[in-house]
Amino acid sequence: MRTVYLNGDYLPETEARISIFDRGFLMADGVYEVTSVLGGKLIDFDGHAARLQRSLRELDIASPVSHADLLAIHRELVRLNGIDEGLVYLQITRGDPGDRDFVFPDPETTAPTVVLFTQAKPGLADSPVARTGIRVISIDDIRWGRRDIKTVQLLYPSMGKMMAKKAGADDAWMIEDGMVTEGTSNNAYIVKDNRIVTRALSADILHGITRAAVLRLAGEAQMEVEERSFGIDEARAADEAFITSASSFVMPVVEIDGVSLGDGTPGRVSRRLREIYLEECRRTAV
Amino acid sequence: MRTVYLNGDYLPETEARISIFDRGFLMADGVYEVTSVLGGKLIDFDGHAARLQRSLRELDIASPVSHADLLAIHRELVRLNGIDEGLVYLQITRGDPGDRDFVFPDPETTAPTVVLFTQAKPGLADSPVARTGIRVISIDDIRWGRRDIKTVQLLYPSMGKMMAKKAGADDAWMIEDGMVTEGTSNNAYIVKDNRIVTRALSADILHGITRAAVLRLAGEAQMEVEERSFGIDEARAADEAFITSASSFVMPVVEIDGVSLGDGTPGRVSRRLREIYLEECRRTAV
Repeated sequence: MRTVYLNGDYLPETEARISIFDRGFLMADGVYEVTSVLGGKLIDFDGHAARLQRSLRELDIASPVSHADLLAIHRELVRLNGIDEGLVYLQITRGDPGDRDFVFPDPETTAPTVVLFTQAKPGLADSPVARTGIRVISIDDIRWGRRDIKTVQLLYPSMGKMMAKKAGADDAWMIEDGMVTEGTSNNAYIVKDNRIVTRALSADILHGITRAAVLRLAGEAQMEVEERSFGIDEARAADEAFITSASSFVMPVVEIDGVSLGDGTPGRVSRRLREIYLEECRRTAV
Repeated sequence: MRTVYLNGDYLPETEARISIFDRGFLMADGVYEVTSVLGGKLIDFDGHAARLQRSLRELDIASPVSHADLLAIHRELVRLNGIDEGLVYLQITRGDPGDRDFVFPDPETTAPTVVLFTQAKPGLADSPVARTGIRVISIDDIRWGRRDIKTVQLLYPSMGKMMAKKAGADDAWMIEDGMVTEGTSNNAYIVKDNRIVTRALSADILHGITRAAVLRLAGEAQMEVEERSFGIDEARAADEAFITSASSFVMPVVEIDGVSLGDGTPGRVSRRLREIYLEECRRTAV
């Protein structure tokens, strides 16, 4: 039985309940973050905390918790649940106004809802999947236009994961106007002639915390990085491909729409970036 | 204190609480309907029940409640809360799997969550707003691509309502590729030379239950109806305009982006359609 956090209280997970009038439940009016845990410590915590503040600002939700308190809650949940490798999930919604209305409730009388819980993921860093790589399919990207805000409007990404599963694959890359935007819950990259290509930041994609760290580390390792859009044909013709996310770090992609990349095993650049990033994670975890 | 319905129980509204792991809360994985009540009876109940089944089917959620039971719950809530004029809100989510995962939970072990509550709206039919009409602004439509499924992904419509409020207007019409899709929670119509124009059904707009009834009644009253897209310039040059929804019935629009339509008062066609529709509602309410 996990202990979770809800609005100031640490509770058994089965007792953590919210009102049916919570704006997160009625209107998907909330944002979230997922922070990885390695060796009992938090990865890229400052990045996730900063993005959270940005998401809240974009939705005009006043931040209900300070940076220091947020860190303390993360650490306390990791401790209480004995997480060595795993995740901390955080969600903040506009709260429970006690009724339903499209108009935002008065923030003076309706406080945001704050929920955090952990997921234990033993073997997260030394994942067997990372050694074989994942297979992706391509699907249309029909999500809303502000994917830079990390909202809980995750129905389509969830449907995309199911489409991948049905097709015998692991995940889906989404295509808009002929170009890959990103994976269902991760940023997408291809490698051709040792050059790493990934879509530039805009409202079209999530501004990945892991993406920022990996691109910085790639630059420091003298790897060539090109931030531009690429199509699915270019991706299928790439030497290798990978995704990044807080929970998958750097994960090699070995097949796109049934087409094997290179020799069908994780590529050299992807493997090297995973190593470098995991080293950095362990070095800077808090 | 309202009595609400949650998964088989009638509860005081403050005791109706759902798990933080509910897919509706974590992933906006749910659908809803709003049915109006006039004279203590339900308007267009069969239409809403049929659209609910379609929404559930599109999301691969097995219907957890029969048509007869759904009607009985609606009626019981109307009775318990003494609703003469108002609404019954219904939401069904994919349920609470006890943890978070993009992959759909096994429906054998995770039952959908069913929530219903009422809102009393005295004067809903004889609304003073209907006598003066509403003012709308136009905003970009950046919602996801399956607006024909009535999901709870209502963050952007809610933001749109706030944009309208800030601009001193009542609602927003959304524009995609230069054409009006619909209002934030209603279908949009213009009238020019006595011809009613409204966007044809597709995945771009909600398949309004009130829309279907109003178009049928307009045809029966020998009014000309054209189902096609129209731009905001055409709308601003129209003789009159209106919206339809379960809770607003037929509501005249008298101003678009600051431009008055006709003499700035509700138009003849809009007023007549509201009368006809309300008569039909009272005649067929159950």
